[in-house]
Amino acid sequence: MPHTYEHPRPALTVDAVVFGFDPAAAGGLRLLLIRRGQAPFKGGWALPGGFVRIGETLDEAVRRELSEEAGVDEAWLEQFHAFGALKRDPRERVVSVAYFALVRPGEVRGGTDADDARWFTEPEVAAAKLAFDHAEIVARARESLRERVRRRPAGFELLPEKFTLTEMQRLYEAVLGRTLDKRNFRKKALSFGLLIPLDERRRHGAHRPAQLFRFDRRKYAQLAKRGIDFEV
Amino acid sequence: MPHTYEHPRPALTVDAVVFGFDPAAAGGLRLLLIRRGQAPFKGGWALPGGFVRIGETLDEAVRRELSEEAGVDEAWLEQFHAFGALKRDPRERVVSVAYFALVRPGEVRGGTDADDARWFTEPEVAAAKLAFDHAEIVARARESLRERVRRRPAGFELLPEKFTLTEMQRLYEAVLGRTLDKRNFRKKALSFGLLIPLDERRRHGAHRPAQLFRFDRRKYAQLAKRGIDFEV
Repeated sequence: MPHTYEHPRPALTVDAVVFGFDPAAAGGLRLLLIRRGQAPFKGGWALPGGFVRIGETLDEAVRRELSEEAGVDEAWLEQFHAFGALKRDPRERVVSVAYFALVRPGEVRGGTDADDARWFTEPEVAAAKLAFDHAEIVARARESLRERVRRRPAGFELLPEKFTLTEMQRLYEAVLGRTLDKRNFRKKALSFGLLIPLDERRRHGAHRPAQLFRFDRRKYAQLAKRGIDFEV
Repeated sequence: MPHTYEHPRPALTVDAVVFGFDPAAAGGLRLLLIRRGQAPFKGGWALPGGFVRIGETLDEAVRRELSEEAGVDEAWLEQFHAFGALKRDPRERVVSVAYFALVRPGEVRGGTDADDARWFTEPEVAAAKLAFDHAEIVARARESLRERVRRRPAGFELLPEKFTLTEMQRLYEAVLGRTLDKRNFRKKALSFGLLIPLDERRRHGAHRPAQLFRFDRRKYAQLAKRGIDFEV
């Protein structure tokens, strides 16, 4: 049934920049992209996303699209910017509210809506020439995520329940896109009283067994609210 | 002429949380509010804002509304969040992209669209019971602004061309909502190489004349891009 309004309205969409972090893998964050099954940019790679329905919030819309298009049912999501340039979609005026998401790559099941969904490394993203203004959205998402981990604790939704400081450091290195000094990182990470040392160790290859930690949930929630200053 | 779409579309608006900073006045930031001339919330106080036109970007829409409704032609604007709760407007589904703005109160001319526009102190805002979800938008804007001044230089668009360190400190105190230690603030403020000392002093009441500074434009632009860590 068609819907009529007195004034023309932009279409409203949500898009998700889904970064994958796998503590067992080396290298930076990977990005989950969807191959477009229809014009425009048919066959090209794009962010998962779609139209906001009249009866759902923005958060609900992005969770639905992530599940339908990308097979992502669990993600740490944060809205970071609305993109409203006039010609960003060649079909009509579309304003998109963008989110970044962090997931464990192992937890992603296959998508259903999309022809194809797969993880891209950073050089692959650069080579893929994303559809619409999605390269700009990705660049801005990376920036927001870097700022996010400097002012709020990160990792609760991303690391395994028990993790080593090396795994936590790899997460920060992946987000920040640079190597961190091990001693400084450890000192800083332990300074917030966020990490509870466990009476367990884990062996990584030939290294000596590493101390395992878990997050103090209450302290984490408190610091997520109040903010921290994590400069490493 | 009415416009017809296959699926119902939320209305799209922009809203602006306009904070005023006057270096000569004591106290925190003031907030510019508009008295609503029509239902819903007729006679109540609300943020300036309105519908995004099909041919304008989000930034253009908020600048137009600020000029029309609030008499604000010059402002430092930053988009911070899109609000999409289902019942935030009793008339229909409306999604609003919100901005915060910082202006010098003296530069605001009278509004034209609105019945009334005036500056509110923080206790007055709390007592005014803002329309819609505007109290929530204001709370979130304050938080975004506090984070903004901790990670980017601030003041270029807000302080007079020549200013004293006391005036700059007052700006930070107004944004952060707390008193800062004078010596720490000065040390930190001077540490970025942002401030150029002038060969001029200004007298404030009975105090000894204070050194005047101006911003180094190039350095300011550079640090605005790269980010700083301003913890005071």
